[in-house]
Amino acid sequence: MATLRSEGKFITLEGGEGAGKSTSREFIVELLDARNIPFVQTREPGGTALSEALRSLLLTKEGPAPSVEAELLMIFAARAQHLHEIIEPALAEGTWVLCDRFTDATYAYQGFGRGYNLSAIELLEQMVQKGRHPDLTLLFDLDPGIGIERARKRAELDRFEEEELAFFERVRDGYLTRAKGNPRFVVIDAAQPVNVVQRALQKTLEPYFGSEFHG
Amino acid sequence: MATLRSEGKFITLEGGEGAGKSTSREFIVELLDARNIPFVQTREPGGTALSEALRSLLLTKEGPAPSVEAELLMIFAARAQHLHEIIEPALAEGTWVLCDRFTDATYAYQGFGRGYNLSAIELLEQMVQKGRHPDLTLLFDLDPGIGIERARKRAELDRFEEEELAFFERVRDGYLTRAKGNPRFVVIDAAQPVNVVQRALQKTLEPYFGSEFHG
Ligand SMILES: Nc1ncnc2c1ncn2[C@@H]1O[C@H](COP(=O)(O)OP(=O)(O)OP(=O)(O)O)[C@@H](O)[C@H]1O
Ligand SMILES: Nc1ncnc2c1ncn2[C@@H]1O[C@H](COP(=O)(O)OP(=O)(O)OP(=O)(O)O)[C@@H](O)[C@H]1O
Ligand SMILES: [Mg+2]
Ligand SMILES: [Mg+2]
Repeated sequence: MATLRSEGKFITLEGGEGAGKSTSREFIVELLDARNIPFVQTREPGGTALSEALRSLLLTKEGPAPSVEAELLMIFAARAQHLHEIIEPALAEGTWVLCDRFTDATYAYQGFGRGYNLSAIELLEQMVQKGRHPDLTLLFDLDPGIGIERARKRAELDRFEEEELAFFERVRDGYLTRAKGNPRFVVIDAAQPVNVVQRALQKTLEPYFGSEFHG
Repeated sequence: MATLRSEGKFITLEGGEGAGKSTSREFIVELLDARNIPFVQTREPGGTALSEALRSLLLTKEGPAPSVEAELLMIFAARAQHLHEIIEPALAEGTWVLCDRFTDATYAYQGFGRGYNLSAIELLEQMVQKGRHPDLTLLFDLDPGIGIERARKRAELDRFEEEELAFFERVRDGYLTRAKGNPRFVVIDAAQPVNVVQRALQKTLEPYFGSEFHG
């Protein structure tokens, strides 16, 4: 028997290094599980075998760094495959998608951080996403100095995490610029203790849960 | 002592599978060597460590095939890095670049072959090449049935070489469409015996050799 089901919600987690995206993703997973909401959790760049292979090429510190254009095109190639294999099929069948970073990260890092032409990013976004955008973007806003310290404690730094602090200040400002006046964004003060962040997340997500029956 | 030197020439070899591009590249290398012309020989997708890694991801038959967008963006990412690391520095110092496939192949395969929007390819071309185009494109034109037979004899077929014949007919027509009325193209009948092809190459290249002194 076919069940009539609306499209899944597409939720992205954004913010600088160590802001608490992955920690919060785990918490949201618990909320979704408790409500029997079908979901996939994924990340960018990544989420498919091809996209994860591209991620490794992007993050490695071996060999000459990719040019800004090569980096940008690899990110969007990974995203195209991710949408094609995972995100679009999931949403179409009513499965929610919880994604650690998405196109806002490209604007923030490659656009604001590296100074790459924002309109070129927009062109690629249109080419690859064909009108698909997150329903909700949780932006974890944090002083980059604190974030890098948190990330450093956790693991060895990758090619991005080794950028200078000024780069991450531009990334942070870029995220906040994108969030301003855009109703899909909810900015969360990520300097707060984990339990306070979690209360904010629960309050933000409650209206989304309410809109559907999941059984 | 600084030597005043003009920019190197950028020569690309194009055509379907098994048309004789690599065979002709070796012959042109001999011509350049005999004239003491400094050159690099390279290929696309490829030419740098990153671009060769992207090439492997593009040609592998493992896992789900890349979506058309992912494929196109990976090709241009590889091209961006190739221009950045190899082609532009070589040309700037007066070294010639002899490249097995370049952007005309993207128009022919992804555009005409797969039916992808040509204007999207043009946008990527502008983004990545910033006005850089080959000085001379040698198009090896051959009936695809013959070409595939030649390629099959040589090695196991890759993901592209396993396409149906109609795909390669579209690729061939695409190449010829691009060549028509474009003075940078020289179309070579690749069904001719190797020695006849080589005579045509020599005649085509002679004027380029003549324009400079190399000592
Ligand atoms: N609100 C918080 N207060 C203090 N520490 C936190 C908070 N949230 C997360 N952390 C800790 O900071 C570190 C980084 O958190 P997490 O991995 O969730 O960040 P992230 O945004 O996913 O980082 P990355 O961008 O590197 O993936 C972890 O050790 C985590 O336990
Ligand atoms: N003019 C020719 N006549 C007959 N056979 C040829 C001719 N040119 C090349 N060949 C043979 O055809 C095969 C394919 O040639 P080659 O590898 O040069 O083609 P290619 O265009 O580089 O192919 P690919 O697109 O697969 O790289 C080789 O075995 C080569 O010796
Ligand atoms: Mg994380
Ligand atoms: Mg070849």
